[in-house]
Amino acid sequence: MNKSDHHTAPAPNLDMLGRSGAAPLAEVFEVLKRLMAAHPGPAVEEIEADEALGRISAQPLYAPEELPVHPRSVMDGYAVRAADTYGASANLPAYLTISGEVKMGEMPTAGPAPTECYRIATGGLLPPGCDAVVMLEHTVPAGDNLLEVVKPVAPGGNIIARGDDVQTGEELLPAGHRFRPCDLGLLAGLGLGRLQVFARPRVGIISTGDEIVPPEQTPPPGKIRDMNMAGLLAMVQSQGAVGINYGIVGDREDDFVAQMQQALAECDLIMFSGGTSVGVGDLGERVLGKLTSPGILIHGVAVKPGKPVIIAAHGPKPVFGLPGHPVSAAASFALLVRPLLAGLGGRRHSITPTETAADPIRIPSPVATATLQRNLNSAAGRTDLVPVKLQTSPTGDLVATPVLGKSSALSTLVRAHGWIIIDAHRQGLDSGSQVAVYNFDTPDLW
Amino acid sequence: MNKSDHHTAPAPNLDMLGRSGAAPLAEVFEVLKRLMAAHPGPAVEEIEADEALGRISAQPLYAPEELPVHPRSVMDGYAVRAADTYGASANLPAYLTISGEVKMGEMPTAGPAPTECYRIATGGLLPPGCDAVVMLEHTVPAGDNLLEVVKPVAPGGNIIARGDDVQTGEELLPAGHRFRPCDLGLLAGLGLGRLQVFARPRVGIISTGDEIVPPEQTPPPGKIRDMNMAGLLAMVQSQGAVGINYGIVGDREDDFVAQMQQALAECDLIMFSGGTSVGVGDLGERVLGKLTSPGILIHGVAVKPGKPVIIAAHGPKPVFGLPGHPVSAAASFALLVRPLLAGLGGRRHSITPTETAADPIRIPSPVATATLQRNLNSAAGRTDLVPVKLQTSPTGDLVATPVLGKSSALSTLVRAHGWIIIDAHRQGLDSGSQVAVYNFDTPDLW
Repeated sequence: MNKSDHHTAPAPNLDMLGRSGAAPLAEVFEVLKRLMAAHPGPAVEEIEADEALGRISAQPLYAPEELPVHPRSVMDGYAVRAADTYGASANLPAYLTISGEVKMGEMPTAGPAPTECYRIATGGLLPPGCDAVVMLEHTVPAGDNLLEVVKPVAPGGNIIARGDDVQTGEELLPAGHRFRPCDLGLLAGLGLGRLQVFARPRVGIISTGDEIVPPEQTPPPGKIRDMNMAGLLAMVQSQGAVGINYGIVGDREDDFVAQMQQALAECDLIMFSGGTSVGVGDLGERVLGKLTSPGILIHGVAVKPGKPVIIAAHGPKPVFGLPGHPVSAAASFALLVRPLLAGLGGRRHSITPTETAADPIRIPSPVATATLQRNLNSAAGRTDLVPVKLQTSPTGDLVATPVLGKSSALSTLVRAHGWIIIDAHRQGLDSGSQVAVYNFDTPDLW
Repeated sequence: MNKSDHHTAPAPNLDMLGRSGAAPLAEVFEVLKRLMAAHPGPAVEEIEADEALGRISAQPLYAPEELPVHPRSVMDGYAVRAADTYGASANLPAYLTISGEVKMGEMPTAGPAPTECYRIATGGLLPPGCDAVVMLEHTVPAGDNLLEVVKPVAPGGNIIARGDDVQTGEELLPAGHRFRPCDLGLLAGLGLGRLQVFARPRVGIISTGDEIVPPEQTPPPGKIRDMNMAGLLAMVQSQGAVGINYGIVGDREDDFVAQMQQALAECDLIMFSGGTSVGVGDLGERVLGKLTSPGILIHGVAVKPGKPVIIAAHGPKPVFGLPGHPVSAAASFALLVRPLLAGLGGRRHSITPTETAADPIRIPSPVATATLQRNLNSAAGRTDLVPVKLQTSPTGDLVATPVLGKSSALSTLVRAHGWIIIDAHRQGLDSGSQVAVYNFDTPDLW
């Protein structure tokens, strides 16, 4: 190699190391999809329904019985034969005799005769012979147990028929569904008190770097407190997984190897932060090369922030080497680890029918649209994540202002409400354009 | 009152009871705002930072020190005097002698002389005399500790200066902020290990109705399992509050009074479901009349589903009587209880500057926009909530299909992804229009 070669190469030092390339996000997603496809799937455990909020169903749930089992009134009013009310109006009401009452919580054994009716409250069981309920609002008391009906009701009116809510054997929820409050209400109504759910993924986290001390220590000169452990543990928790702290290993390879071995034995997914750039002689690359098989699949992702990411696998277990800069680590987690973690937890997204939407390895749905307040430049071929602060304009619309700062300055994220994403095929976004705003702090809603 | 009067009155039976009116949502929100304004505020407790995800800060947090305390490199490369690189290019590189190295985690006591440089890794401390870092990518090794720099760097380039992330005394987060993962990362970086947070609101829940049995029982003929307790407990939990089950009181006033007294003594907010319509002789109204002062503030809300809602107060404690129908109870919780619960938990929304957005008593931000798949009618003056199922169209856009069903059929919510809201001033929505989709299952994002 002579000097003139050096001068024309765009990034000679990295070329020498064979690491100038960074994989486009789409290519990285394909790798993550293959990891998901090869995974044997999470373990299953049985829990009480009252602990199931946010957990993932491990099997489809079918209705063991129908709901309701008997037709019920959905209004306060009078149980009638609908035909007795046909043609009724305020000027020409139908007259019915109130001959009884439905008691709440009791099965009526008798019902009104034709041209008679029973008082009934919301939730009351429809008595024999009746096929509808006249709303209280459409009646006028006429004395001596006589009732004027001023509006007709059709058969089935104001009642919920047997099986109208749920039919016996019906699939209520598919496997891979994240339980919401309404789901738990319906399951309670059907007496489904124990549920098969997928085990929460266990995520081992290691911090690397000789300059890092635990947050409870006062850093001596030259050192700083570890921000990534606390942030990544909370990110994992916010996704419904379990984060496990394997501590700070410095830049000593032996310590790193020991903690990584333990994490690989105990966890479903492992993340370490730092040690992925050339500064520490690619400590992460060396350790993964020793301990993992098939080993490193990706080294470098065309995402800003978050380029120096390593993705490796040990058997079915993914290992992510995340950048040491806290903003880069957060962006890499959001974009790459989060969707894989959802998949390893058994989550299947529920919006059909396109492939893209049903695919767990994807950028989640944005949660807001806002007007961008300044121009943003981006390199083509690279996906950019930009933290934005949201405000409401005087007209009530959302506006998004990029929070600029170095990726080592976590305060930029703290000042922001969410992120915008500049796709790899774009070279920037213009001020005034409508942008989608993403939040990665909760599991995907659907 | 003579018969002809009955015939022209729109809802004579309810008029007789003095209950035909239902308060518009805006008026109900004003009542909730007054309840909030009169509330003394939640208690404060101190917790460990690693338990703080999703909790609400009880005081503003200020930086006890600056970050970083010493300028650091944000790139792998060489620490230099920027002036030594001015004018450098690939064809005319600047030549610097590599005279040392910055060790990670150590404070450099000496630095390079002019026209010299030190090797430095990401996170390394800038040595004395240097004011910038040249990226590795912009250098070429030239043998014998000689380095070619092929691109100039400006002073401050590729470093994070002292205090660039956080200044001493700076407000990091305001009171009323919901802690996110990035917040906890930054607080760890500053050694803030114990945090003052607001106590989680305690919410007492009572189910009423003689027809209701606990979910673990097989209902005898005429009875059904309680769906509302499980659903409401989970809704409360999903908002970061604590739900407490006070059981099923049937329609017996004495039982209801006893449980309500206990709940009023032990909880910050009380909800009961059922017992708010005339069918049980307004049991809820009677019990609240006996036990609460100032008592009932609202009886009936112009919302569908969810009209027969009671809002009362006992001192600073709000009491909600929710409809017995599970869909109506869910809608009433989402629209009325949820924002008040956020306020009672000390939450302050973070999007400025309009009054509307900063107000905790409000409909939260929608989480998606979709194309409505059919016409929906609505009565003017009434706010409608309609559950919708989302799908992606072949072009990848979201489409929303209303899930129609009776408000006693909880399966309609289970089949839906979210809700759309038809404002009181509208009489419906046209098929093909763009609609905002709401999800009430998480706390507001900002």
